[in-house]
Amino acid sequence: MSTHSSYSVAIVGLGTMGMGAAKSCIRAGLDTYGIDLNPQALEELKQAGAKGVAKSAVDFANILDAVLLLVVNAQQVNAVLFGENGLAQQLKAGTAVMVSSTISAQDAQQISQKLTEFGLIMLDAPVSGGAAKAANGEMTVMASGSEQAFHKLQPVLSAVAGKVYNIGQDIGLGATVKIIHQLLAGVHIAAGAEAMALAAKAGIPLDLMYDVVTHAAGNSWMFENRMKHVVEGDYTPLSMVDIFVKDLGLVNDTAKALHFPLHLASTAYAMFTQASNAGYGKQDDSAVIKIFSGVNLPSKQGEN
Amino acid sequence: MSTHSSYSVAIVGLGTMGMGAAKSCIRAGLDTYGIDLNPQALEELKQAGAKGVAKSAVDFANILDAVLLLVVNAQQVNAVLFGENGLAQQLKAGTAVMVSSTISAQDAQQISQKLTEFGLIMLDAPVSGGAAKAANGEMTVMASGSEQAFHKLQPVLSAVAGKVYNIGQDIGLGATVKIIHQLLAGVHIAAGAEAMALAAKAGIPLDLMYDVVTHAAGNSWMFENRMKHVVEGDYTPLSMVDIFVKDLGLVNDTAKALHFPLHLASTAYAMFTQASNAGYGKQDDSAVIKIFSGVNLPSKQGEN
Repeated sequence: MSTHSSYSVAIVGLGTMGMGAAKSCIRAGLDTYGIDLNPQALEELKQAGAKGVAKSAVDFANILDAVLLLVVNAQQVNAVLFGENGLAQQLKAGTAVMVSSTISAQDAQQISQKLTEFGLIMLDAPVSGGAAKAANGEMTVMASGSEQAFHKLQPVLSAVAGKVYNIGQDIGLGATVKIIHQLLAGVHIAAGAEAMALAAKAGIPLDLMYDVVTHAAGNSWMFENRMKHVVEGDYTPLSMVDIFVKDLGLVNDTAKALHFPLHLASTAYAMFTQASNAGYGKQDDSAVIKIFSGVNLPSKQGEN
Repeated sequence: MSTHSSYSVAIVGLGTMGMGAAKSCIRAGLDTYGIDLNPQALEELKQAGAKGVAKSAVDFANILDAVLLLVVNAQQVNAVLFGENGLAQQLKAGTAVMVSSTISAQDAQQISQKLTEFGLIMLDAPVSGGAAKAANGEMTVMASGSEQAFHKLQPVLSAVAGKVYNIGQDIGLGATVKIIHQLLAGVHIAAGAEAMALAAKAGIPLDLMYDVVTHAAGNSWMFENRMKHVVEGDYTPLSMVDIFVKDLGLVNDTAKALHFPLHLASTAYAMFTQASNAGYGKQDDSAVIKIFSGVNLPSKQGEN
């Protein structure tokens, strides 16, 4: 037996962020397993050097040191961990589970309680940074949990994160910080859409308006990134309207639980929900601008 | 007579922006005059090399090539130009008047019409960039007007601006671009306040929340600049709550004139107005966060 024991981690959910994280773990020399329902994603990770890939972790669950969950929402986290053939009952006691989906603090706390019943350790660890940072192992992680959880997950955090914020011991704090971040991200997209639609209505060329704002104090990360899609008339989804219906919904749930009035985020939530109901849910989130009638927006080059 | 004739400009309104612009004109070699009601400001500009300073332009109005107005609002612009002993009747025909206050498109158009009756030429030219850029002659100017107006004001624009956007010929377009910019600036401050107040309510340390957001996609220019004041508990006014009551009021006037629904900006306007009515109108605009009751915000070092 080697004194240098290996470290095994399974990434569940091989979307853009999960695939980037999994490949980062491989590059860092971890024994990396990938779990997803999509056979193409499994094949891609296999080619990249995964130790194993599967639609379920049954075959290797009992040798894992850690699991990183990057599925879409709390429902999927619960299904993966506690559903039929759930992972929680297959992992060996003491395995660390890093939950990186954007979920509510209440969901994070309930999941943590259930994991504790199985003798498992949770890190409440949402991420941000987008596809490029995930691919480069430079995600921002906003995490809360026990020292033990941080310690056990150190090899994974080192592999996938450029920056780890330790928010505190209490499960739910990580989720809350991410949700408050999403409040700003969502409001900024909706505000950008409102401003650009008003500019169009006023007869201001949108490329000029974009140029002014991105060189002045009215700029935001989201304005610069998303309103470019509006200027180009390209609503190919990088992140969809429906993601912000979900995330701003979580923002409102959080505020309700804290008895806190959200003036702007509740309005932005209504705007994204209206866009989704109007049929734009699967388009780029900048398509929230389409809720404004009677304005002429740019069309993609070559289209009518 | 020299073939190299001199160029004379008067700056009306020697606040932070006007003083910076006036000093930039002096540095650029223009014969610069300063007009303000505040004797300290006049003395400061005199020391900096002004050709003349006064509470009224009566004594030198007829030798001016250009006037730059940087007073607070449309009411002051009208009083300076068309009030008792108004400047318009004293300027020689063909003098260019650059109106750089933040005003509505309708006000800009009315002022332009009246100036035309006096044979004067208007550039609708709001500015942004803050005190530092004004002092360095690097303001951003978003201007509309005739080619003649741009041409006659070229020496002034060269002196005060880092970037000049030519929005078009129609008076009102410059005002509109500035107002749409202010929509974003105001909503971003209010959204930052909403997010930070929610973080405080949720028990997230605000310095940590600030650190996360400013390193992630939820950031905005205003969040980074203004929420620092909240983290430090310092509401010394750089720009006041009441300025955004005014500017978001203009945003709403503009939208009303265009029959355009403003979901977020109308809400942000209500938030700033509420803050003003609660007694915070003369504090830094980040004090809009004080409308949220029941949250503990940081206090300035050394204060209770």
